[in-house]
Amino acid sequence: MQEVAVVAGSKSDNKLVEVIEQTLEKFGIGYESFIISAHRTPEKCTEFSISAKDKGFKVIIAVAGLAAHLPGVIASQTLLPVIGVPATGGPLNGIDALLSIVQMPGSTPVATMALGKAGAKNAAIMAARILALSDINVANKLNEYRKELKSGGK
Amino acid sequence: MQEVAVVAGSKSDNKLVEVIEQTLEKFGIGYESFIISAHRTPEKCTEFSISAKDKGFKVIIAVAGLAAHLPGVIASQTLLPVIGVPATGGPLNGIDALLSIVQMPGSTPVATMALGKAGAKNAAIMAARILALSDINVANKLNEYRKELKSGGK
Amino acid sequence: MQEVAVVAGSKSDNKLVEVIEQTLEKFGIGYESFIISAHRTPEKCTEFSISAKDKGFKVIIAVAGLAAHLPGVIASQTLLPVIGVPATGGPLNGIDALLSIVQMPGSTPVATMALGKAGAKNAAIMAARILALSDINVANKLNEYRKELKSGGK
Amino acid sequence: MQEVAVVAGSKSDNKLVEVIEQTLEKFGIGYESFIISAHRTPEKCTEFSISAKDKGFKVIIAVAGLAAHLPGVIASQTLLPVIGVPATGGPLNGIDALLSIVQMPGSTPVATMALGKAGAKNAAIMAARILALSDINVANKLNEYRKELKSGGK
Amino acid sequence: MQEVAVVAGSKSDNKLVEVIEQTLEKFGIGYESFIISAHRTPEKCTEFSISAKDKGFKVIIAVAGLAAHLPGVIASQTLLPVIGVPATGGPLNGIDALLSIVQMPGSTPVATMALGKAGAKNAAIMAARILALSDINVANKLNEYRKELKSGGK
Amino acid sequence: MQEVAVVAGSKSDNKLVEVIEQTLEKFGIGYESFIISAHRTPEKCTEFSISAKDKGFKVIIAVAGLAAHLPGVIASQTLLPVIGVPATGGPLNGIDALLSIVQMPGSTPVATMALGKAGAKNAAIMAARILALSDINVANKLNEYRKELKSGGK
Amino acid sequence: MQEVAVVAGSKSDNKLVEVIEQTLEKFGIGYESFIISAHRTPEKCTEFSISAKDKGFKVIIAVAGLAAHLPGVIASQTLLPVIGVPATGGPLNGIDALLSIVQMPGSTPVATMALGKAGAKNAAIMAARILALSDINVANKLNEYRKELKSGGK
Amino acid sequence: MQEVAVVAGSKSDNKLVEVIEQTLEKFGIGYESFIISAHRTPEKCTEFSISAKDKGFKVIIAVAGLAAHLPGVIASQTLLPVIGVPATGGPLNGIDALLSIVQMPGSTPVATMALGKAGAKNAAIMAARILALSDINVANKLNEYRKELKSGGK
Repeated sequence: MQEVAVVAGSKSDNKLVEVIEQTLEKFGIGYESFIISAHRTPEKCTEFSISAKDKGFKVIIAVAGLAAHLPGVIASQTLLPVIGVPATGGPLNGIDALLSIVQMPGSTPVATMALGKAGAKNAAIMAARILALSDINVANKLNEYRKELKSGGK
Repeated sequence: MQEVAVVAGSKSDNKLVEVIEQTLEKFGIGYESFIISAHRTPEKCTEFSISAKDKGFKVIIAVAGLAAHLPGVIASQTLLPVIGVPATGGPLNGIDALLSIVQMPGSTPVATMALGKAGAKNAAIMAARILALSDINVANKLNEYRKELKSGGK
Repeated sequence: MQEVAVVAGSKSDNKLVEVIEQTLEKFGIGYESFIISAHRTPEKCTEFSISAKDKGFKVIIAVAGLAAHLPGVIASQTLLPVIGVPATGGPLNGIDALLSIVQMPGSTPVATMALGKAGAKNAAIMAARILALSDINVANKLNEYRKELKSGGK
Repeated sequence: MQEVAVVAGSKSDNKLVEVIEQTLEKFGIGYESFIISAHRTPEKCTEFSISAKDKGFKVIIAVAGLAAHLPGVIASQTLLPVIGVPATGGPLNGIDALLSIVQMPGSTPVATMALGKAGAKNAAIMAARILALSDINVANKLNEYRKELKSGGK
Repeated sequence: MQEVAVVAGSKSDNKLVEVIEQTLEKFGIGYESFIISAHRTPEKCTEFSISAKDKGFKVIIAVAGLAAHLPGVIASQTLLPVIGVPATGGPLNGIDALLSIVQMPGSTPVATMALGKAGAKNAAIMAARILALSDINVANKLNEYRKELKSGGK
Repeated sequence: MQEVAVVAGSKSDNKLVEVIEQTLEKFGIGYESFIISAHRTPEKCTEFSISAKDKGFKVIIAVAGLAAHLPGVIASQTLLPVIGVPATGGPLNGIDALLSIVQMPGSTPVATMALGKAGAKNAAIMAARILALSDINVANKLNEYRKELKSGGK
Repeated sequence: MQEVAVVAGSKSDNKLVEVIEQTLEKFGIGYESFIISAHRTPEKCTEFSISAKDKGFKVIIAVAGLAAHLPGVIASQTLLPVIGVPATGGPLNGIDALLSIVQMPGSTPVATMALGKAGAKNAAIMAARILALSDINVANKLNEYRKELKSGGK
Repeated sequence: MQEVAVVAGSKSDNKLVEVIEQTLEKFGIGYESFIISAHRTPEKCTEFSISAKDKGFKVIIAVAGLAAHLPGVIASQTLLPVIGVPATGGPLNGIDALLSIVQMPGSTPVATMALGKAGAKNAAIMAARILALSDINVANKLNEYRKELKSGGK
């Protein structure tokens, strides 16, 4: 079952998407990945957002750079928790993406993660923490991961 | 005839909207104003954006603060020129709004103005410069305005 | 049943705590609030964090300003999802708190919200979105809230 | 017919100029390009600005870096719409250019685009959106471009 | 004899102009003050700049806020030393003005002072230091001022 | 005798640790180095902090990047002086680490050094200055170092 | 006995000096306070710095704003540990002072504290932590203070 | 005759010093270059500053990076005009140096130039503009340089 939707604004975010996917796999979480641009393909973005819950997704992770509207635009069209990952790579190195994602007005939250790879990894772990509230397998994997960390793993 | 649509993300942007309206009136430009939130009322935003051209609007001015997605979201759903005004007022004083508006990815431009009142006034003047390309009355008003400036007016 | 723990680093964060509490109440979510400083009362912070899950909390919201370590320190000692709200109010108006909360290294995510009141409100709504995954009452309240937003409410 | 004037402050802005030119060509828009420095060649800049309209130009795109005065200086000497593109490349990576272009005082707007290549591309598209108001060919090309975007093109 | 021209971009810079004037008077330096906007009155700005030397001015102090082009635009049209004072007061508190003044490209320097009042005072003292190279009276006043500072004066 | 504990949040801070170690050796100061993460290994961090004084350490130097909580978390659990070194290397080049370390709330100081290598070197010299208050050998080495600096050494 | 010298660059830093003095008194630490400007009274600054150790001072706390050179200038002329407190209050709210104090080149450390009052308080506590290494009375006061913090005091 | 003293804080600023020297040569201005650190060699810095005028120098150009105190420290010990060049190269790319140089408190001005090479070149040209007030040869060279610029030179 695919519980997490991973959405990236552009193919250039591929490396971050891969980090998210690998980390989700580590926690045994099913996912499906999409390339959807809030600006180039707005209808597709709306369609995705309003149908995400019915398709069985429980958490959405959205990656975007520059004026990163994607996570907020999705969050305004679904009631699922949306996790945002600001991509680095533009001339401001992602500070624009960070502010565009985190500074959402009161009503429409996006759970914002760190810039770049650290944020991508953490987005998957945050999804795991959310899913673990009702999924003992994910909870167990999180416990194992914590032990790994304590013995020097990453 | 209403050629300019003025859209604000929230009632708290009212003072900026008034500056835009007064400046448009100074140039004899017809306008209609809207409160539309990209996040709270996304359908209304889509509906407005896709029908703006057919309603006769030629230029759209959008005001928004914080993670100011409104101008970009409109720009992705119309082919009219969209002018964005970053509102000040949040804890970062608008630097978040500025970056969220100006750093649009290549494909979907927003003509970004200065923060706050200066930007609101300039949005209307930019609309006038665009409309003046095919409207001699607006062109004349712009000429008069320039003379006013030179003799010490504002 | 108290499902959300609201933790603030200092009494000076009271206004943000109230916004969080009122919003949680709006969604019918039980909560308990704490003043715990990661720096002044580290043992209390550890004790709270490691026992939060067993006490029945499902989500933790942590508010902090300046070098805002509280959300990250809690997140490192629990597996529950932790939502961080950067408080404004210091000489840098919260940009220090924002970066101290959001830039968590890969392994220990904090779901970061906007600065100040917008973020406080959104923290509660994000908690609601997470709880709604397994609580139909909260899901219904979120649906009603969305309708309210669409008809002009906040 | 050359409807767009593309002006760069220095030869080092060549790559951005090329992006602008290629994008204008994609929309079938005639253009002429200039190297004019507001600081090294101020008379040439004045001469260009005050004669641009009479030469048939309808839109001016100006690219500049560092203390990027060029777009504003041109905008103060013409009534045509001026689009500004902040060049990256200095030690502040263009944040100085962005602020020098966008923060124009109320009276003299510059339609500011994103930093660097995204902004260069968008400057041309913004020019197209403006020209499309009275040029059905450009309007058609914009429509085609949108379709391209929707089917995965850039 | 008026050796220093003090130019402000707008009447709203009056307080800074007064600080400059009072400090120049303290050093017995003759001055004349002007309101000239690089954007609203570009011809006046050119006329002033190209005639400043012949009128006997030796140093020009220019005050401007926001996208503060005035000092650089003057510096490009005179060979006199130009001192720039970034005005605070806009939503970015002058950081835009500072960067717009100081980041001049190689060829056209502006001697940039601190933001606001400290910078206004220092602009006059810098003018005094320059004039003192060939004016023993100003040199003596600077010496007296230094003694004052050492005995606790300002 | 090991008087200084050098703690790094991650192996990736190794280069900074080496600079600290080499500089301590130059001043004849005994040290022991640790890899302890405030987030991955919080118990180890607590254990280290509360036992540091009894183990004979007099000064603790802590290196961390991103949301650099390590120095503050240690400082909250010991009464020894803690010196913090913000690591560069993330997408914000350490400005996040700097603010996360320096902006400690009143009650729990961290003596913050410059970003990266300069800060690493200075952390060791600051430890030397502190130890020199009661250790004549270190005081002498500091004197020699100063002479070296004056004759062109580093 | 006066073990701590508290130096402020200007009378306008008085409130921060008072916070430092009150906190030192709380820990039973003798101090003497000075107004010395690195820029207005450089000889006095040199004289103070080179004689501080011989006068019995063990720690120097220096407060300064804007281009805050005072702590670094003192640190270059003594081998005592120097603690720097960046004052807020200028148009950049102290970010200039923070960077001017913390970014010292490798060779001459300044132990930098938080901006404003939090930093002033912490400067005194850091002095206490340093003095406690060889003064059991101060060590005891620090222990008592920690207990106070844990029971809710500040 | 050597009229300009060029002082750099460290050998690592060599490339900027060379740009200054070459530009001074272009204007036929005699100079002498020094490596003096405000922090490593404070006595040498004082000695240089207080004797600079008597040695016949008329203008001092000081280059420094990080917490760039050198220009301000020199300016506080001479009455000659001091021009400051912020060096890039540290982890903040010179923004720390820029603020440390430009934000001098009212009383002690430093004529601040742009970051890095542009600033180095402009420092020499600013020196030329100052010297040209009483040196017809330099004035002529500045005129020639302006003509060069207008015909496309740099």
